[in-house]
Amino acid sequence: MAPKTVQTAPEIAAGDPKHAARATRSAGRQMRSRLLDGASRLFKERGLVGTSISDIAAAADAFPSQITYYFRTKEALFVEAACREMLYLARATEQAALRAHTPREYTHALAETVTATDSVAFFAEALTLTRRRQDLAPLVERTIERLHSEGARAYASQVERHGWRSLRAPEESSRRFWAVAIGVMIEGHAMGRSAEDLCCEMLRVLGDQATTPPSVDSTRLRVVDDSDKPDRETSS
Amino acid sequence: MAPKTVQTAPEIAAGDPKHAARATRSAGRQMRSRLLDGASRLFKERGLVGTSISDIAAAADAFPSQITYYFRTKEALFVEAACREMLYLARATEQAALRAHTPREYTHALAETVTATDSVAFFAEALTLTRRRQDLAPLVERTIERLHSEGARAYASQVERHGWRSLRAPEESSRRFWAVAIGVMIEGHAMGRSAEDLCCEMLRVLGDQATTPPSVDSTRLRVVDDSDKPDRETSS
Repeated sequence: MAPKTVQTAPEIAAGDPKHAARATRSAGRQMRSRLLDGASRLFKERGLVGTSISDIAAAADAFPSQITYYFRTKEALFVEAACREMLYLARATEQAALRAHTPREYTHALAETVTATDSVAFFAEALTLTRRRQDLAPLVERTIERLHSEGARAYASQVERHGWRSLRAPEESSRRFWAVAIGVMIEGHAMGRSAEDLCCEMLRVLGDQATTPPSVDSTRLRVVDDSDKPDRETSS
Repeated sequence: MAPKTVQTAPEIAAGDPKHAARATRSAGRQMRSRLLDGASRLFKERGLVGTSISDIAAAADAFPSQITYYFRTKEALFVEAACREMLYLARATEQAALRAHTPREYTHALAETVTATDSVAFFAEALTLTRRRQDLAPLVERTIERLHSEGARAYASQVERHGWRSLRAPEESSRRFWAVAIGVMIEGHAMGRSAEDLCCEMLRVLGDQATTPPSVDSTRLRVVDDSDKPDRETSS
């Protein structure tokens, strides 16, 4: 069965082929998005095994065949929904950290936002699944690349704005942040930890990302300050 | 049906009740261990969903009822097998790092050993499962505590032995190491990365753990050197 929206939309704007194509695309995007919303909610609540295609169809007010039309398999929908949630979380994290005035407040805002949701656990489940389903790897790879590059960009811009001294390259800071988030949260969720405990553990494991300069009127804005990394040069 | 070994052992040493009990316990331990070996191999290869109780019984030359007798469910066996593998890995990691002469060699030996096996991915799958099966959480909790405390002890003893300066408390170093290992490896496995790539990424994300002292003849052995952590005191 063809998806409902794809079937009916051309009839609505049948007079103009361009309109029709645009309406179809737009209706298709809306249906995709609705299916992803419903799937995310159910998958986060019940996991992959505990959620069926017909549950998701019912939650999104759609037909099961529309899920297979847009996503092919439940596993592909799971991974796409988890990747989308993870990028939403990254954006929310970046927004929350804009209010920080010190490096410590900044890291705290990131950790607090990340540990307040189920998105990292959802994404970690998608990563575990993708290990055995390498056909789904390209989307995961693009998502991780975006996480790292957008994290690095957001962090570098805050470091520059406030004149902080970063303890390592922004790209490394971002990679460490997300790897630690995944590691700490799947450990903590398995042990039934609260969001507050997860946040404390994240801060403890992460360590500091940056420092404030010794003199506030320092005019040199340094994104990476090598003087804080004796270990890079002197350890052998 | 009662497990085969528990059934037959008392008959063998029927003359002495103490012997019989000891033989039963020993045979039970052997059967448990054989089931865990077979299960670990299959679970690592095919995952939880791809492995059945009868597959494991066949691999361990046992009856399916022996699995339910010793472990109750496939999920409980999965988590126990994964926890055991993780503690074996921790021991192998510690052994490999004994040969290191510098902090960098030490961290490299840890990362190389961890990324050479599937054990972290197996454990991460067990963590994801335990999130929805909180009855299995106590074993996971004990395993994580042992990982952290044994890692901290092993690291502190090497720091002291070589006179290195640790950049943070051994307990924090150990927690960071395992959280990063889990995060980096489930990301990397999802993207189909090689063991070599995983090792590079782990080293990049971890950063340095310790430095060598500026003068070799330093007689003070410091497990934690606060002078290397200006960020702790000066960032606000």
